[in-house]
Amino acid sequence: MKPYLKEDPWSIIEEGFDKDKHEISESVFSLGNGHMGQRANFEETYTGSTLQGSYMAGVYYPDKTRVGWWKNGYPEYFAKVLNATNWIGLDISVDGTELDLNRAEVNDFVRELNMKEGYLKRSFRATIADGKDIKVEATRFVSVAMKEIGAIEYKITPLTFDGELTLRSYLDGDIMNKDANYDEKFWSKVSESAEGSRAHVTVKTKKLDFVYASLKETKVVHAGEEISPAECKTAEKYAEVTFTAPLKKNEATTIYKFAANVTNRDHEDQKLLDVAKEKLNQAIEKGFDTLKKEQADEWNKKWEDSDIVIEGDVAAQQGIRFNIFQMNQTYTGEDARLNIGPKGFTGEKYGGSTYWDTEAYCLPFYLATADQRIPKNLLVYRHNHLEKAKENAGKLGFTKGALYPMVTMNGEESHNEWEITFEEIHRNGAIAYAIYNYVNYTGDKSYIGELGIEVLVEISRFWEERVHYVPKKDVYMMHGVTGPNEYENNVNNNWYTNRIASWTLEYTLFALDYLKDSDPELYKKWITKLDLKDHETEKWLTIIDKMYYPEDKENGIFLQADNFEDKEIMPVSDLDEKHLPLNQNWSWDRILRSCFIKQADVLQGMYFLNHEFDIETKKRNFDYYEPMTVHESSLSPCVHSILACELGYKEKAYEMYLRTARLDLDNYNNDTEDGCHITSMAGTWMSVVEGFGGMKVKNDQLILNPFIPGQWSSFSFKVVFRGTRLLIKVTQDQVVVNNETDVKADLVIHGETYSLDGKGELSINH
Amino acid sequence: MKPYLKEDPWSIIEEGFDKDKHEISESVFSLGNGHMGQRANFEETYTGSTLQGSYMAGVYYPDKTRVGWWKNGYPEYFAKVLNATNWIGLDISVDGTELDLNRAEVNDFVRELNMKEGYLKRSFRATIADGKDIKVEATRFVSVAMKEIGAIEYKITPLTFDGELTLRSYLDGDIMNKDANYDEKFWSKVSESAEGSRAHVTVKTKKLDFVYASLKETKVVHAGEEISPAECKTAEKYAEVTFTAPLKKNEATTIYKFAANVTNRDHEDQKLLDVAKEKLNQAIEKGFDTLKKEQADEWNKKWEDSDIVIEGDVAAQQGIRFNIFQMNQTYTGEDARLNIGPKGFTGEKYGGSTYWDTEAYCLPFYLATADQRIPKNLLVYRHNHLEKAKENAGKLGFTKGALYPMVTMNGEESHNEWEITFEEIHRNGAIAYAIYNYVNYTGDKSYIGELGIEVLVEISRFWEERVHYVPKKDVYMMHGVTGPNEYENNVNNNWYTNRIASWTLEYTLFALDYLKDSDPELYKKWITKLDLKDHETEKWLTIIDKMYYPEDKENGIFLQADNFEDKEIMPVSDLDEKHLPLNQNWSWDRILRSCFIKQADVLQGMYFLNHEFDIETKKRNFDYYEPMTVHESSLSPCVHSILACELGYKEKAYEMYLRTARLDLDNYNNDTEDGCHITSMAGTWMSVVEGFGGMKVKNDQLILNPFIPGQWSSFSFKVVFRGTRLLIKVTQDQVVVNNETDVKADLVIHGETYSLDGKGELSINH
Repeated sequence: MKPYLKEDPWSIIEEGFDKDKHEISESVFSLGNGHMGQRANFEETYTGSTLQGSYMAGVYYPDKTRVGWWKNGYPEYFAKVLNATNWIGLDISVDGTELDLNRAEVNDFVRELNMKEGYLKRSFRATIADGKDIKVEATRFVSVAMKEIGAIEYKITPLTFDGELTLRSYLDGDIMNKDANYDEKFWSKVSESAEGSRAHVTVKTKKLDFVYASLKETKVVHAGEEISPAECKTAEKYAEVTFTAPLKKNEATTIYKFAANVTNRDHEDQKLLDVAKEKLNQAIEKGFDTLKKEQADEWNKKWEDSDIVIEGDVAAQQGIRFNIFQMNQTYTGEDARLNIGPKGFTGEKYGGSTYWDTEAYCLPFYLATADQRIPKNLLVYRHNHLEKAKENAGKLGFTKGALYPMVTMNGEESHNEWEITFEEIHRNGAIAYAIYNYVNYTGDKSYIGELGIEVLVEISRFWEERVHYVPKKDVYMMHGVTGPNEYENNVNNNWYTNRIASWTLEYTLFALDYLKDSDPELYKKWITKLDLKDHETEKWLTIIDKMYYPEDKENGIFLQADNFEDKEIMPVSDLDEKHLPLNQNWSWDRILRSCFIKQADVLQGMYFLNHEFDIETKKRNFDYYEPMTVHESSLSPCVHSILACELGYKEKAYEMYLRTARLDLDNYNNDTEDGCHITSMAGTWMSVVEGFGGMKVKNDQLILNPFIPGQWSSFSFKVVFRGTRLLIKVTQDQVVVNNETDVKADLVIHGETYSLDGKGELSINH
Repeated sequence: MKPYLKEDPWSIIEEGFDKDKHEISESVFSLGNGHMGQRANFEETYTGSTLQGSYMAGVYYPDKTRVGWWKNGYPEYFAKVLNATNWIGLDISVDGTELDLNRAEVNDFVRELNMKEGYLKRSFRATIADGKDIKVEATRFVSVAMKEIGAIEYKITPLTFDGELTLRSYLDGDIMNKDANYDEKFWSKVSESAEGSRAHVTVKTKKLDFVYASLKETKVVHAGEEISPAECKTAEKYAEVTFTAPLKKNEATTIYKFAANVTNRDHEDQKLLDVAKEKLNQAIEKGFDTLKKEQADEWNKKWEDSDIVIEGDVAAQQGIRFNIFQMNQTYTGEDARLNIGPKGFTGEKYGGSTYWDTEAYCLPFYLATADQRIPKNLLVYRHNHLEKAKENAGKLGFTKGALYPMVTMNGEESHNEWEITFEEIHRNGAIAYAIYNYVNYTGDKSYIGELGIEVLVEISRFWEERVHYVPKKDVYMMHGVTGPNEYENNVNNNWYTNRIASWTLEYTLFALDYLKDSDPELYKKWITKLDLKDHETEKWLTIIDKMYYPEDKENGIFLQADNFEDKEIMPVSDLDEKHLPLNQNWSWDRILRSCFIKQADVLQGMYFLNHEFDIETKKRNFDYYEPMTVHESSLSPCVHSILACELGYKEKAYEMYLRTARLDLDNYNNDTEDGCHITSMAGTWMSVVEGFGGMKVKNDQLILNPFIPGQWSSFSFKVVFRGTRLLIKVTQDQVVVNNETDVKADLVIHGETYSLDGKGELSINH
């Protein structure tokens, strides 16, 4: 698709209304504040194609699994992000004609997602009947300061006539998920009311007893006067208040709608309405403008922490800010029960909320841009699910250990493709790796003894049982897995999986030793609690020692899996373009037996365990696998971009960066209407900071190896590290580092060690 | 489950009514005549668990596919055997109380499937109210002589009272398939009527326009007098005629119901009712007893051709006859548009009708027991589907050749598991092999030039494109397949698939040479029509020459697939019994990475291409694979039994025979309520004739190597071969062969050649 959004450093802007792109825009212009999210649906009735979407973080539903052919071990239920009460609805009629952009003539349509201040604005002129032109300006946001509050300002100005406005301001809780497997509704009625200018709808999920109350107040102001409501009405799971107001030519009539959206995840069931009332009253007291000002302040703080500035390339600047904005909209790290869904609050595809994406792609963003407790909560989330992960391993026949699910909302497996659910077990390694990554970055080794060791031991126990010994070859192997490259399924000895499994054992043994040395009491407590036996750790040593890795020793290449080189090897560039993307053009068997790679696999290992391999080894493997990689996962280009930076492949690094940075803005994968690719956005951040910035942490040192694409005049980013926050600016000639804190910072740039005083600045030519 | 059926050489008998076993019995006691089939449902109302099932051969429905996760190349529709108008229904009320065996006290219940004469009989006493005991005797059959006629005789005798019978004799066309993917009904109304003692319902499938008319006549006779109908009624897709009749203590009141069931597969739409009327009139004119006599005569003829007699073991006798009976009920070979569904007319699971089962397991039965045109029609069926098979290959990205579907009703693929649908391609080899098998058995080489060559060339073209060349090793390989052992998926170089692919190329080249020599004109015609180029056949020679076969050369074992020996190798006997059957106890990944084998795979190759391997090779491979085989496919034990016979493993042969012979009678797999395992029944026949009988055809000679299990005193079977029919009887001491025809027969027994004059007898001690 041709890009249709205007380039701008701080806003996403759509000029002119195109019905065919509306659902894409609904995704791209979504709002969220970590507690709730809202697709960029129109407030007023829209009869064209739309995916109405309002989501509450952590409110999910166990939809009945749909399969073609049942396999033992499949989960009965598939936890799904729940589409919930529509709280934005404003039905607008002018002299009896309903405003509907699908039917009206629309001019001067502008939609703007203001990322700097965190709001969505829309303005347009519409001819709704002969000679009746109106102008509308609608602004809304979900408050960061008051996470349960959503606010709308909706101004209507008749341009050519005097008339009458009829407004139905409603809450609709009779919502169905678009992705419901059996077209069932998941919400049942609790209560609804409409009285004066207020209305509420409380609904409850048919399973799991999530209760969600939405309480709203509507104000209609004309010529400085507040209009009284005309009528109140309720129906099951529905409440509305109707107003009629005068419309005077060239005078604005303004509607304000405030909603308090609360759930029993945060409050007692019985108090939900009281809480909502309290929050709503506070919000109304502040008023729309004050709330909007607070919103700008809150977003200003977020940008202060996490902004990346790119000079000389507006499209790149807009792309990276969009990604950072969406990351911050999706997850704030305040609530350890939450995680980062692949679509965030922008759509409902992929049902479950948590994938290995969180550990592999999102954690580094929060490590480097947020307070330590925020990435830590991502680890605690998995610790909270440990018992479920042990049950999951049990269901698959293991006598001990934990297998974390591929997709989950509450710790239970939600996915049901055997080749993924049962076999894509490398996810377990990423969850162990995240502990290492957190400890390595923050230096917070206390987490090992606090909770980390328990997760590490149970994952190690899983690997111990999952490998098998082959006497003839005196090695341990792992059969029947799917690696990160999902374009191979059910392979034997996926190099990455074998390596990350063995690495988990190594790191767990390291963590045990560390505990034993640093806190023998705590060590003993864990050994007892975990009932960890010597024969287990001894077995782990043996497995580490005898793990089999498929290799082409002659050419110095790690093989993605057994017999990989027996495939018909060819570069993607030899394929006629009509075959791409493969997943839309080839049958699954053809993809599987081809050499083409969906996303980094061996190279994922080179990225994670970067320090284990010399540059020549990385180069050989990159040179072998990169040409076969089709990057049909949004998670792929970032890893390639980072490695390309390290290897000095400047053009390749920039090419890969472009594939990830504007994925949704340019609807690169032609699926943005389903929602944005939230988790891969963190990958984009990684491309800039770990790729172009060359940032690593090794032996408690922050390391930078920056290089700047020729297309940019400069780029800068901030990282928090061990109590400091550094602003790093890279130009074509220089690296300039500013220490924004009072704490002294040590760092290594291009191999040289520097020490930077509090508030100090450092410039290096390169 | 404990066996509950009585042993009897000619009948299946259930004594005593057990509601929990009713659905199993409904399957086991099913009736069929190749044109239609009927589960052994009760005629009267039954409110307990039941699967009402009436099926018309070749009438199917493209139900919308259900998948969890869509893959490119999946079929949109899944053709399903259609459950159709219930024509057996008789609602019986006695003095206002409905007869329902779920609620009445039932005594002296006997259900009998008389296989000798082809009817189902049921008798019981029921206490339907205080002091009201009745006796019922119900007999029914679907006529072999008049394939569109079904007939019921239903006698009611009050034992303890005088009263009144109310009978509603109905046709119900408002039927839903139990296995409908989205609970949709597939039939729509055409017309219905009820007048006098007749009623009809005509329905039409919502897609594909199959029209099915059922016309019935009901007669009620009491004390020699025919009772007039009391009332007629219709509703949408429904018609009934009601009778009231006197019930006199110890006097039978008899209901006769005759139904003519016709479809537009056989007759013009407009004439359906006329045809039905004509058939029904003929049937009524004959009357129930004459029709029943005809039925016995027809079945007598079938037994004359295909009976196997086992002396000294009633259970074995009953088992083999049940299998032969069901085979003959399912497929008569009259109609080349039909084939043999895995459940026949006994249930609706597995949706589609045709699997490779037909070629691999059913063909030999029809080759040896039926007129040559009947097995030939099974080949013509696939030839009729050749264009669809070419389209199917095209859909999967092949530029030429034919890939027959895994499951089909009309030539289109119906299945949607990628690892089966796209990868279990060895089925293509079985379809080629069936041509060889037919030609080899019958000597009818003319089929090659008539139709066979076209199928062979298109399948060979598929294999040519499906293999790939590995320059480093100078071999052709085949990656990403699933072999006959579905407990491995997506493997590389499945030995069986590689071998049957290469064999197809060999046989196609042989067939082309044969044509060129024997009929150069015809050869030229085909070369032109098929546009077959020299470079294609040359490529086939190269592939044959360089095909890669995984082998353990040291131990002389063909490996099921690459790296098979890297698995954890252990015999089934080392498993704790609680793990069996694996498919009910293990998750799919665990099954896949284990060494355990669902059904013959390498050994399937040893069976098909038996003549290619010396006895030692077969022995080594059998000894290696048999202990790892769990036989969780009903198609597995027969192949093992046949090979065990050849290798002289008598105990193993008999053990395997027992697993196949009474599979449904003893509900061995605990799933007979879904229907009987029709296609594996042909495998049971093979176990006796090709296994214990040791029958083969080689170089146009019939070869026998009989051996008799110690448990039997004798067994005998008949085979038609090249114009003769031989009765072969094997006792513990002797083999006796009777030539039932006037044609001289040559045969080889235990390596010696014998010539047997017309009507001659031959006895050999062994």
